[in-house]
Amino acid sequence: MSSVVAVVGATGAVGREMLRTLERRNFPARRVVALASERSVGKKLPFAGKELTVELLEPKAFQGVEIALFSAGASVSREYAPIAAQAGAVVIDNSSCWRMDPEVPLVVPECNPEAARVRPKGIIANPNCSTIQMVVALKPLHAAARVKHIVVSTYQATSGKGHAAVEELRAQIAEIAAGKQPTVKVFPGQMAMNLMSDWKPGQHGYSEEELKMVNETRKILCDPEIGVTPTCVRVPVVTSHSETVHVQFHRPMKASEAIELLRGAPGVVLVQGEYAPGKEPQPLLAADTDPVYVGRVRDDLAVPGAINLWVVADNLRKGAALNAVQIAEIL
Amino acid sequence: MSSVVAVVGATGAVGREMLRTLERRNFPARRVVALASERSVGKKLPFAGKELTVELLEPKAFQGVEIALFSAGASVSREYAPIAAQAGAVVIDNSSCWRMDPEVPLVVPECNPEAARVRPKGIIANPNCSTIQMVVALKPLHAAARVKHIVVSTYQATSGKGHAAVEELRAQIAEIAAGKQPTVKVFPGQMAMNLMSDWKPGQHGYSEEELKMVNETRKILCDPEIGVTPTCVRVPVVTSHSETVHVQFHRPMKASEAIELLRGAPGVVLVQGEYAPGKEPQPLLAADTDPVYVGRVRDDLAVPGAINLWVVADNLRKGAALNAVQIAEIL
Repeated sequence: MSSVVAVVGATGAVGREMLRTLERRNFPARRVVALASERSVGKKLPFAGKELTVELLEPKAFQGVEIALFSAGASVSREYAPIAAQAGAVVIDNSSCWRMDPEVPLVVPECNPEAARVRPKGIIANPNCSTIQMVVALKPLHAAARVKHIVVSTYQATSGKGHAAVEELRAQIAEIAAGKQPTVKVFPGQMAMNLMSDWKPGQHGYSEEELKMVNETRKILCDPEIGVTPTCVRVPVVTSHSETVHVQFHRPMKASEAIELLRGAPGVVLVQGEYAPGKEPQPLLAADTDPVYVGRVRDDLAVPGAINLWVVADNLRKGAALNAVQIAEIL
Repeated sequence: MSSVVAVVGATGAVGREMLRTLERRNFPARRVVALASERSVGKKLPFAGKELTVELLEPKAFQGVEIALFSAGASVSREYAPIAAQAGAVVIDNSSCWRMDPEVPLVVPECNPEAARVRPKGIIANPNCSTIQMVVALKPLHAAARVKHIVVSTYQATSGKGHAAVEELRAQIAEIAAGKQPTVKVFPGQMAMNLMSDWKPGQHGYSEEELKMVNETRKILCDPEIGVTPTCVRVPVVTSHSETVHVQFHRPMKASEAIELLRGAPGVVLVQGEYAPGKEPQPLLAADTDPVYVGRVRDDLAVPGAINLWVVADNLRKGAALNAVQIAEIL
């Protein structure tokens, strides 16, 4: 059965990726509506060999819409998601606004597809990019041995901060190549050739991004006792987030067992073999592809029964647009 | 008392930094001899307002040398360090060749200066860059509460791989800015806008670099029971390594206590305050400076009594040349 689908925030980095994903996966849409704020109205966006004209995001825009994919930031979601749901659409929201609402399921189809069925507010939340790729890798291991404690360090791409951030990184690289001083506007400092923690402050010295990894992981894996130790770092990469993940379990796990569990796990591509320089998953190789790449699966040297992983995925695809469209597909 | 100092591998990235460090710290050298392999003989290197002419590395070059700073790779050190020691020099070796030899002390002056006194082979080893900055940060904490387990993820600069690697990164950035395909020779793939694990394979799925962090940390902190979980990653940064460090202790430690211990600790600059985007230590800010910058000191969210750190230092200075010269200074 085909649906009428609205993409809210269609001109943003994730919104554009949502349109590409709907097209690439031949999503059964009778009609696709591109919505955005006033300054983008009238813009043309390519879709399925034709063009969509961006329409104004306003309450009446949701008349007849069955699925509304939101990616326009938390404040837009807070205002318009209930309006879209009221109009009869199922909202799949990519912002952080509704994720921890107990009446809103937080869904990664490889992990908890059943949660999408119960949505009292008509809203399903799409998790944070850095969380999605980690839980896809952890799910088969958690099912087998129950995750107890994760220490995760991220290497996050600039596209997670939007179009303007990517443009600034590219501009800074051109400036450096030309021997000029890089111009800084979007980031709090020079991002090219540098590292940064540029998220909003959360609590207890953690960034909001880090606290999302703690809370969302527990909600998606349905286990409030999982301990998560997160450090989020931005790296001068355009696309794909990477993560080192140290995992301790309630029941000891060997790397050899983890490899068997990850081989063929939903959404996962296992990149295994002995350590070889440059043969592990890399952001450049993961960019513009769908899977979550898991490599460097190895027994921990200090904690018996713990393992270490290196997890890489395209943050705009599995980390955002693809996961949202996959949720729409299971509805 | 002033000495005759030889720098072996004087034309390399670390060798040049050693000359700059000797000059900057007004090291009491009666004479400085720059040694290198045949193809560099006759090159001129700036030193203290004059020029040093590179001389041939051969056994007789060590006649009269009192301190020999080696940074020409493990095979040169294996051959020439005993020759230099035999000729009466104290060798301070920056390669991995002698580090785990039980008759060779492995010294970070802020951690174990006393170890430099006992050197049966006449050789003192300078630890690996990624280890040095971590143990400088850990030492005051270890003294207070004994470190039990560390999970460390590195973000390592390209200069750790030498001149040619930095030149390749810069060339790739210029190629990307010009819309060309980046040329790959030194790295096993494109390094610009990417991440990589490009070290030699070690054992059990770990790289040699990672195993160095395990073994050297235990030797420097004189505690063979410290558990180390390392993941080493190369990032497209020119100078300064960065590390996320999760630390568990035998006696629980609060972040507030760690902050007091780190404030004013030898070699450490504490960058504290609430989390603020872009205000944490960064490789670009640490480059061309001496300290080990420690920031983001926070209580762990999952393990009571554990803390998390973000540690950044110039890998050519404290990570290599500065530490070697500091060892020479305590002799």
